Amino acid sequence: MKTVAVFVGSLRKESINRKFAEAIGKLAEGKLAFRFVEIGDLPLYNDDLWPDAPEAVHRVKREIEAADAVLFVTPEYNRAYTPAIKNVIDWGTRPWGKNSWEAKPSAVIGTTPGATGTAAAQNSLKGLLTVIDTVLMGQPEVYFTYKPELFADDGTVSCEKTRAFLTQWIDRFEAWIERTSEPRTKAQAGPA
Amino acid sequence: MKTVAVFVGSLRKESINRKFAEAIGKLAEGKLAFRFVEIGDLPLYNDDLWPDAPEAVHRVKREIEAADAVLFVTPEYNRAYTPAIKNVIDWGTRPWGKNSWEAKPSAVIGTTPGATGTAAAQNSLKGLLTVIDTVLMGQPEVYFTYKPELFADDGTVSCEKTRAFLTQWIDRFEAWIERTSEPRTKAQAGPA
Amino acid sequence: MKTVAVFVGSLRKESINRKFAEAIGKLAEGKLAFRFVEIGDLPLYNDDLWPDAPEAVHRVKREIEAADAVLFVTPEYNRAYTPAIKNVIDWGTRPWGKNSWEAKPSAVIGTTPGATGTAAAQNSLKGLLTVIDTVLMGQPEVYFTYKPELFADDGTVSCEKTRAFLTQWIDRFEAWIERTSEPRTKAQAGPA
Amino acid sequence: MKTVAVFVGSLRKESINRKFAEAIGKLAEGKLAFRFVEIGDLPLYNDDLWPDAPEAVHRVKREIEAADAVLFVTPEYNRAYTPAIKNVIDWGTRPWGKNSWEAKPSAVIGTTPGATGTAAAQNSLKGLLTVIDTVLMGQPEVYFTYKPELFADDGTVSCEKTRAFLTQWIDRFEAWIERTSEPRTKAQAGPA
Repeated sequence: MKTVAVFVGSLRKESINRKFAEAIGKLAEGKLAFRFVEIGDLPLYNDDLWPDAPEAVHRVKREIEAADAVLFVTPEYNRAYTPAIKNVIDWGTRPWGKNSWEAKPSAVIGTTPGATGTAAAQNSLKGLLTVIDTVLMGQPEVYFTYKPELFADDGTVSCEKTRAFLTQWIDRFEAWIERTSEPRTKAQAGPA
Repeated sequence: MKTVAVFVGSLRKESINRKFAEAIGKLAEGKLAFRFVEIGDLPLYNDDLWPDAPEAVHRVKREIEAADAVLFVTPEYNRAYTPAIKNVIDWGTRPWGKNSWEAKPSAVIGTTPGATGTAAAQNSLKGLLTVIDTVLMGQPEVYFTYKPELFADDGTVSCEKTRAFLTQWIDRFEAWIERTSEPRTKAQAGPA
Repeated sequence: MKTVAVFVGSLRKESINRKFAEAIGKLAEGKLAFRFVEIGDLPLYNDDLWPDAPEAVHRVKREIEAADAVLFVTPEYNRAYTPAIKNVIDWGTRPWGKNSWEAKPSAVIGTTPGATGTAAAQNSLKGLLTVIDTVLMGQPEVYFTYKPELFADDGTVSCEKTRAFLTQWIDRFEAWIERTSEPRTKAQAGPA
Repeated sequence: MKTVAVFVGSLRKESINRKFAEAIGKLAEGKLAFRFVEIGDLPLYNDDLWPDAPEAVHRVKREIEAADAVLFVTPEYNRAYTPAIKNVIDWGTRPWGKNSWEAKPSAVIGTTPGATGTAAAQNSLKGLLTVIDTVLMGQPEVYFTYKPELFADDGTVSCEKTRAFLTQWIDRFEAWIERTSEPRTKAQAGPA
């Protein structure tokens, strides 16, 4: 079973994007194993920190490299991706020549309480995910309007129609990973 | 040998982007077969034309579908891709459910006489190429400052360093196509 | 009363973006005078055409230059602005040194039948409108989900809430034009 | 004399974007007063922090509100603006209804050692600066290739041609601020 490193763009405790991603992770059980990566403890990107970078930086890079694929779950802040998203992306591509994202199959989803469902934010992120050399799945898109009544108390998807929609996305992402993965090189395999 | 449908964003006769693409096509001989697609005869996209679309529209869609991969070569107009590029992209995705670009490995390159080498234009295009469901190669990038002295009279690359740089890109794109291609479905195989 | 040159990104006869813009134009009567600019007869941008450019090109440039402000009304094609929009933008900025858009107050709106209301398309256009040197009003945004029942048979807005929302936008745009306009130079005043 | 709050996207001590901005600030003396705003001590944006936000957040918002205009100086990280830039932008727009950026004249510049001079990064930022309701000056653009020999030991611009180019930009920005400023409302004037 393929592992997916998941990056949630909101740092709020009650983030609906986190809940949304967790619900999808539960739905994906047996197909994809979601690994949520903590990104709230990373410092703002600063090149000067590299000689003695915080452990959080090294940990995040290891978690990216250990995964078969990566998933970005972004709220919409001012019609664009969040600072936490750009921050982990930039740490992951450095230091020069050690791009942890290289060749990873990737996808982006997101949710808002409002109708546009992060359409603008996700589109600000798509080009960037190709620049960092991931293999981005462009379709199907998930612009999701979050409503608490679509989910059960245990965080699973309770709405049948939503479950069918998300299951289709999971199956497509699984197939995408299968199709576009390349054998990880030793450099990408993370520490022994 | 894989075929690549090539879309040049400039319609000028003496377009440096066309010359650049042609030089790369010659350099790629034996590895990739470039097929230049005429896009200057397409009407501006208009949904009303579908019931009786001009032959140029059908021809372009056939040429996309027949290719193993697609390459966009874009000048920079006001820091963005050109109208001719957006026009062929939108025709290619329609009518609804008949997206000719689906699953094609893709890349984008470009050149200007100036120093920025279409960096902004290419970046405006990257997200879009994933929206239309192509599998975009994000790296390596080709932001090329065009100088006539880099090319010979017969249109081939005469500068050794440029040739090495472009050969590396060709090899990477060839490997990308090999890795990300999926068996074309009947619908994508073009006319019998 | 200020005049606004209006550019509708769809060329369809029954375009909902055109209907939407016309309804706003009626609502703005007495405050702003909307002038709809025909852009469907422009050729795809081609630098080679300048020495003997079609009359449509000159006409469009005159209409831009004669207006106090410009308004872009864009559908969403593949999460981005339409070819017709990019085409008129590029013609308007040329030939070199004769940018017809210079210093014009501008705004962008759009509508779709779907929920996202052109959020992604509009956001792909915003940066571009500053590159061409217009003075873009960023707020308030109009991401409009089109429903026929919001409009009367004569094309006016029949829904009270929609009318209030659009009236507020009109008032803001009028104030924006007032505030950011600069005295048009002779070069921008169009033909005598 | 108008004051300009300056935001440098790199947190490095020896940042060339900081040096570049400081050199411009010296060149602008007597015309514009540059106020460099510290953004490296802001936490990653997190809505949960608002009830008891760190003093750095309040300080930054006051500094934005107190300025007549704002200037973003961005390096290029993966062809886009930096995390520090997006972070201060998002803090500045919150809490809901208290957008500190509202109606501020703005501009964006940047430098890299390489030829593209942050063209892609700046273009990723332009649309965003209109979303947050600043009045963005789109032209002239400053895509600057940084070379130490263009500057003197005291940080001033030593190259004559560079000085002329930057002086022209300063004059244009000064005129832009003059033209597009509106009387600051009490809400925007910062704490008494």
